[in-house]
Amino acid sequence: MSPPRENAAPGPLDDTSLNQLIESLDADRNGLLDDLIDWLRIPSVSSDSRLRAEVRRACDWVGEKFAAAGLSVETIPTQGHPMVVAQTAPVAGAPVVLVYGHYDVQPAEPLEDWVSGPFEPTVRGGDLFARGATDDKGQVLTHIQSVCRWLSAGHDLPLQIKFLIEGEEEVGSENLERMLPELAEKLACDCVVISDSSQYADGQPAITYGLRGIATYELTVRGPSQDLHSGSFGGAVMNPAIALCKMLSSMVDENGVIQVPGYYDRVQPLTEAERQQWAQLPQSDAAFAASVGVKELFGEQGYTTDERRWARPTFDINGLTSGHQGEGVKTIIPAIASAKISFRLVADQDPKELTEQLRQHFDAVTPTGVTWELETDHGAPGMLAKIDTPFAKAAEIAIDAAFGTKPVFIREGGSIPIVTRFQEVLGCDCLLLGWGLSDDNTHSPNEKFRVQDYHRGIQASTRLWNEIAKQVG
Amino acid sequence: MSPPRENAAPGPLDDTSLNQLIESLDADRNGLLDDLIDWLRIPSVSSDSRLRAEVRRACDWVGEKFAAAGLSVETIPTQGHPMVVAQTAPVAGAPVVLVYGHYDVQPAEPLEDWVSGPFEPTVRGGDLFARGATDDKGQVLTHIQSVCRWLSAGHDLPLQIKFLIEGEEEVGSENLERMLPELAEKLACDCVVISDSSQYADGQPAITYGLRGIATYELTVRGPSQDLHSGSFGGAVMNPAIALCKMLSSMVDENGVIQVPGYYDRVQPLTEAERQQWAQLPQSDAAFAASVGVKELFGEQGYTTDERRWARPTFDINGLTSGHQGEGVKTIIPAIASAKISFRLVADQDPKELTEQLRQHFDAVTPTGVTWELETDHGAPGMLAKIDTPFAKAAEIAIDAAFGTKPVFIREGGSIPIVTRFQEVLGCDCLLLGWGLSDDNTHSPNEKFRVQDYHRGIQASTRLWNEIAKQVG
Repeated sequence: MSPPRENAAPGPLDDTSLNQLIESLDADRNGLLDDLIDWLRIPSVSSDSRLRAEVRRACDWVGEKFAAAGLSVETIPTQGHPMVVAQTAPVAGAPVVLVYGHYDVQPAEPLEDWVSGPFEPTVRGGDLFARGATDDKGQVLTHIQSVCRWLSAGHDLPLQIKFLIEGEEEVGSENLERMLPELAEKLACDCVVISDSSQYADGQPAITYGLRGIATYELTVRGPSQDLHSGSFGGAVMNPAIALCKMLSSMVDENGVIQVPGYYDRVQPLTEAERQQWAQLPQSDAAFAASVGVKELFGEQGYTTDERRWARPTFDINGLTSGHQGEGVKTIIPAIASAKISFRLVADQDPKELTEQLRQHFDAVTPTGVTWELETDHGAPGMLAKIDTPFAKAAEIAIDAAFGTKPVFIREGGSIPIVTRFQEVLGCDCLLLGWGLSDDNTHSPNEKFRVQDYHRGIQASTRLWNEIAKQVG
Repeated sequence: MSPPRENAAPGPLDDTSLNQLIESLDADRNGLLDDLIDWLRIPSVSSDSRLRAEVRRACDWVGEKFAAAGLSVETIPTQGHPMVVAQTAPVAGAPVVLVYGHYDVQPAEPLEDWVSGPFEPTVRGGDLFARGATDDKGQVLTHIQSVCRWLSAGHDLPLQIKFLIEGEEEVGSENLERMLPELAEKLACDCVVISDSSQYADGQPAITYGLRGIATYELTVRGPSQDLHSGSFGGAVMNPAIALCKMLSSMVDENGVIQVPGYYDRVQPLTEAERQQWAQLPQSDAAFAASVGVKELFGEQGYTTDERRWARPTFDINGLTSGHQGEGVKTIIPAIASAKISFRLVADQDPKELTEQLRQHFDAVTPTGVTWELETDHGAPGMLAKIDTPFAKAAEIAIDAAFGTKPVFIREGGSIPIVTRFQEVLGCDCLLLGWGLSDDNTHSPNEKFRVQDYHRGIQASTRLWNEIAKQVG
């Protein structure tokens, strides 16, 4: 990638030109949507080694999109899936914004629960259904489209925009995390913009200033050297599946309070200001419960649902595997039982410290007659960003114009592990602009993205570049 | 099946004729083994609906074997897999023995743990490896061979022998249980002989006079209507996999004592005589632990390992299924978690009563925010037989002659659900003559049957018919 020529500072567009640009976006909604559908057809499941070629195809798709729009593009290999870095020309005296997103997606299983195929994007009732529709192809594409359309309309951007689109977000971004220091110069920026989260509610856009961290593990419990007949051996040996259930049960009490010693030691409490602000959000536990299909919500006493989801750490079992899972009866004591488990962390919990706490906890609760192994998959601390910045102000104005509503400032329960690393390594501000909805079924069957929100996102992004130039310039 | 002609009572063979018969069995060991290998090649997994045709093939195999030897044969259809009833000619004034066995086998999974294919019978180190080698094709075939060889040597049997070979033992024998009253006349007998258990130890044959019963269930816990993103929803809803672990953990305390109220109410305690007799058996906990690959055994305090395996009821988890089980990480709250569970029961526990106790227990321990369903698969009470009968005496003599060692009287932890029903409906005695070994890997990968024990079993069975005629006649 040859260094792009530095533009003379072009300054923000006047209102007339900006409105013309927005109108041209409105006029080509079909074309903008077709691009997304095209990208979503590629099953870029980063955790599935059988799909390696498809993951690469999704990477190339976005590289070609940038190249066609005239950005300089580089595909950077990693030990896993490659990342794409693209940039517009530098603008003297103007800020630099880095847009981060990912072209990889979660596995689509269970396939039988999808109404239309996960990689056959389908519009139903104003929603586009596909794996990756909102997480994150649809959301990051809003920024790619806005920059491409600025350029194809013949406008110079009033600031430099860099893109970093990686292929391993859904498997922990380990390669990017490790390579970030050596990429720091290339990615140097004043602010990272990420759209991989949600609006607060339908019709209520949000700017997210906090994310939970994550730590994931696989716990394997081993007993006899092979499956045993439960008649001949039942009562004589510990059943590894029972041992696993006992060990996992010991993790959390009946009120949802995690029992691993030291787990809450570093948790930053909520501020009174946050609690008061969030209390004013239009939140209904009954509606929330209905939206996910449960009769009752559940969690730590003394916190509201939003507080528990956004600012309290959790423990979850993501998968259980042991013994006979097929049709009918097989009366065995299984040799092995395993669980995929994960924790959502909040500032200032440390995933490495948790791994140690967890090992000590399991040591203390291991039943007689079994052994266990704990495999650490990946971890990242939580993130808390400042909200009184010119970038946040610019985003507030751009979103208000595109969505017709001022955004609220919230946190989110999900994790974007790389965000904390951006703050640390690049020393930049951070803007999390979620265009999705909380019922978009991310990581679930029937993932979707509202078509209208895709277009609003493109328009908000189009305005954002202009507003940042005004606010910061 | 036309009723066979009634023979004039031929009486037992003299020692010379019996020895010639035994010598002819020794001379044709290869032919006898080839028959078993042939039957074992048929993957008659009764719980796998995809293998229905193979199950039928295994049924036909044994029917043809009987027909070729001149027994009258009837294949009786059921709502599931058919059963084969065969019989030799009635003998006036002589007892009638019913041999019961099954041609169906357990699933072979996990396939990757088999050294040779489960349906490619292979002899290694004196053992024949295949699914069903010992449970039960190999064992029941000893009796089929002995009767066929009596007849092909030109001898009339000194008693009538009936065979009932069913195809649903591994899925609970429900059809046979239901049809038994209408079959009672056809199956009328003085004693049922079953070889579907083990010798006490290598070189120490046994007559088994007690079996544990069984009750199997599938517990399914449901939470949200679909898998949820553990970031956006973690902390707000109960995780069904955690709920399942809590519910299963509550079943049993850290000493292996089952916590379901009422579970032990009807349990018949061990007699002092049994405990003293069993204490003299050559039992080593260290060797037992080593044989199954665990460092420590586990179970109820105050009982020996044999007492826990044979005469105490248990709870086991046979399988766990929830959420993501594939490669890599998928950070979800699964919508569903399920477990296959089973109990081994002892006299006088009642499986139906247990189902009620279990429902009440789960009602009491269900966490907030989930629902559960309990599917009952099958159940049977335990069995305790008399040991001071002429049939037991005959077996003792026949086994002593064939194995070179007097058998010991033991119980076994496994279940043959139909045995109690035979006692109830047919009003007969019951002889459980195990030719297998406890490390035969029944229900596990690398199931095997020692070739020498197959032949000893055939010879013991050959002698048994003569001894019964002597003892009873």
